[in-house]
Amino acid sequence: MKALLVGVGAVGEAIVKILSKRDTEGKWLEKMVLADYDFEKAKSISEELQNSKRFPAEFLDASDKEEIINMIKKHEVDFVLNGSPPYLNNNIFDAAFEAGVKYLDMGLYSNPYPAESSTKGYIEWMGDYSFKKAKEWEEKNLLAILGAGIDPGVADVFAKFAAKHIFDELEEIGVKDGNNITVKDLDIAFGFSIWTVIDEVLNPPVVWERDKGWYTVEPFSGIETFDFPEGIGPQKLINCEHEEVVFIPKYIDKGLKKVSFKIGLGDEMIQALKVIRGLGMDKKEKYIVDGVEVSPRDVVASIAPSPAELRDKMEGKMCVGIHVKGKKDGKKREIFMYQYLDHKDAMERVGCQVVVTQTAFGACIATELVAKEIWQGKGVHCPEYFEPEPFLKLMQEYEYPFRILEMDSEYKKSRDEFELNQILDEVAISKE
Amino acid sequence: MKALLVGVGAVGEAIVKILSKRDTEGKWLEKMVLADYDFEKAKSISEELQNSKRFPAEFLDASDKEEIINMIKKHEVDFVLNGSPPYLNNNIFDAAFEAGVKYLDMGLYSNPYPAESSTKGYIEWMGDYSFKKAKEWEEKNLLAILGAGIDPGVADVFAKFAAKHIFDELEEIGVKDGNNITVKDLDIAFGFSIWTVIDEVLNPPVVWERDKGWYTVEPFSGIETFDFPEGIGPQKLINCEHEEVVFIPKYIDKGLKKVSFKIGLGDEMIQALKVIRGLGMDKKEKYIVDGVEVSPRDVVASIAPSPAELRDKMEGKMCVGIHVKGKKDGKKREIFMYQYLDHKDAMERVGCQVVVTQTAFGACIATELVAKEIWQGKGVHCPEYFEPEPFLKLMQEYEYPFRILEMDSEYKKSRDEFELNQILDEVAISKE
Repeated sequence: MKALLVGVGAVGEAIVKILSKRDTEGKWLEKMVLADYDFEKAKSISEELQNSKRFPAEFLDASDKEEIINMIKKHEVDFVLNGSPPYLNNNIFDAAFEAGVKYLDMGLYSNPYPAESSTKGYIEWMGDYSFKKAKEWEEKNLLAILGAGIDPGVADVFAKFAAKHIFDELEEIGVKDGNNITVKDLDIAFGFSIWTVIDEVLNPPVVWERDKGWYTVEPFSGIETFDFPEGIGPQKLINCEHEEVVFIPKYIDKGLKKVSFKIGLGDEMIQALKVIRGLGMDKKEKYIVDGVEVSPRDVVASIAPSPAELRDKMEGKMCVGIHVKGKKDGKKREIFMYQYLDHKDAMERVGCQVVVTQTAFGACIATELVAKEIWQGKGVHCPEYFEPEPFLKLMQEYEYPFRILEMDSEYKKSRDEFELNQILDEVAISKE
Repeated sequence: MKALLVGVGAVGEAIVKILSKRDTEGKWLEKMVLADYDFEKAKSISEELQNSKRFPAEFLDASDKEEIINMIKKHEVDFVLNGSPPYLNNNIFDAAFEAGVKYLDMGLYSNPYPAESSTKGYIEWMGDYSFKKAKEWEEKNLLAILGAGIDPGVADVFAKFAAKHIFDELEEIGVKDGNNITVKDLDIAFGFSIWTVIDEVLNPPVVWERDKGWYTVEPFSGIETFDFPEGIGPQKLINCEHEEVVFIPKYIDKGLKKVSFKIGLGDEMIQALKVIRGLGMDKKEKYIVDGVEVSPRDVVASIAPSPAELRDKMEGKMCVGIHVKGKKDGKKREIFMYQYLDHKDAMERVGCQVVVTQTAFGACIATELVAKEIWQGKGVHCPEYFEPEPFLKLMQEYEYPFRILEMDSEYKKSRDEFELNQILDEVAISKE
């Protein structure tokens, strides 16, 4: 497969580094074009890999659809991996469609749903632009995969796996994203795209319930302390607008009654986001300042220390998982199925910081599954659409393993460890 | 006197409102031109006063010196009152000089002195641009008064008065600025020009000691809890770059050993300023964002809720004073000489919020003293240069009174109350 990576930012860089190590000889990833508006960044990554033929650097303005189409044609790629901020999604998605190639991204753009809204039906909201074009993609026999990073991405694969193998009946899925990361010498540090963090935390969070449909709650609401495993410990979580709340109820049933997403930001980051909101610096619209037009949020995103700059100052672990309640064999069952990564390991293994590495490996695995046609089909789909076992098998191979924590359950632990291994042992993924 | 008010922002508006009530018939303030880049704001204040002949509104770009000079000539004013942000000071100061009129401002522009510096001599720092031109002003027989608001301004008048009447020997003067203001429904609220608050709190604070000269300390350092009177109570104060630390040692001796300035911001505001610094949004230089050049701090100052917008949401009191230690009649003496104002009173009396009202009345009194030639002279001076008694007398008349709190002193209270009244009783200020 020949791929065009649109955006070689923090996550894009980690993707290239992981994939170039995973497929050293280009057996299934023949080529990956590194295209960015910041050409110097793309070039430096290309040079680091010492294979500019397989990983050529290109200047690309991803806000220009025609430019993307021309780039796809120039390098004869058959797959576009979108590593750009979500506000460029629709454009890149359309460019892939018009050029007739496969598409994958790691998160959706959101037109924030107004606060205090609720709907029984599907809301005009995250990913709606793409979902509505599903038929056109089907008719053109093309595949688009939305939200295939860690969360969304790995979390959705977990949800599909849990529904398929761990539960007979589902009650609630709560995606939980926590960490015990600290950053030295900085008053405030965003471990992930600042633009995106502002978006997902300050937009009204959406919760789904079977009886109510999707409905919004207040930003910073739903405070809950969750005890994360792997030495991370108790973290205060709050509701957060996130893709999984859209994806999971669209694909998973088994009587599921509620889906939510909560994130652990720490009191300081919560305060920082409230300050950003209080100052109006979260605004996306353009304002006239000193006679020129600027979007306050673009200014923050452009001026603040970038997530990549933090790599040498961070310490701690990230953990993303699904907290699921339901029944198995007629007994109550509660699990936390999670992936965790220590920043130190991310740095040693990939040379990138932990949050972007976690996001990147999910996209890498999805890319490998698409390249090997293990994940295939047509139309516009979320990770839940595909079989989860090959993805989990590759998580083990990539050495970003997952664990299942049996919580306060009537159901026995021992049995499952065995079952899980058996399930994954049956999955075979060729090297080529 | 005919005055040009350059900048009808929050403080400018309060100045006009206080002066128009103080001198209803234009006995000593014949005219005040309300000039602003935001012409609509100037116009609305002019209309509110229903006397557009005495208070005409004009559009003025204060970054254009020639435009200011033309405005001075057009309205034949003999006094410029600078109500603009400090970064426009030098320009307005020069325009007044070139046009040959008197000048008054309420704060200095600072080229922050590098952290961890110290000097025995006077540092190239706040107000230096103006002080260096003192001779030229003297030669032209013109008067400029720098820093005549509340702090700097009233605080400096207090220092002069304390040195003259309350102490025989001075040890330390600590200017202290505290409040118990709360703002409803807002995550973060700047009670004063955001641009200026960022400047004075994030620049390295400067302290003066007789043996060391001026030296810088870390922002947010020098934490001290001071129990403010008038029901405000204990407030956590931190060092802050402020004009008084430059002014006081230049004019006042009596053995004075140390001058500092500390401000009570509250933990939330301190955190907010750390967030602004952490995000790089305090930067004054221009950066390219989305292809246009902007100064991050200008963006914050332009987007965030303006101090004037807060008027209906604030509650509480402001208190500015000088905490002085020294000797009187051979006995140790310690006082807190202060002015305080309740936001509710500021709203009822002026229709402006408390912080800007406090700053404004200081400038109004100084303006009246200049108009009546009670404060007179030539050159470039700070409030300490002039006699403090008439200023304090006018504070009583304007009903922004001051109080002297006798602290842990060997010296007797009773005697002073008497002395103070006697001193002020001897001051006569004509109505015309």
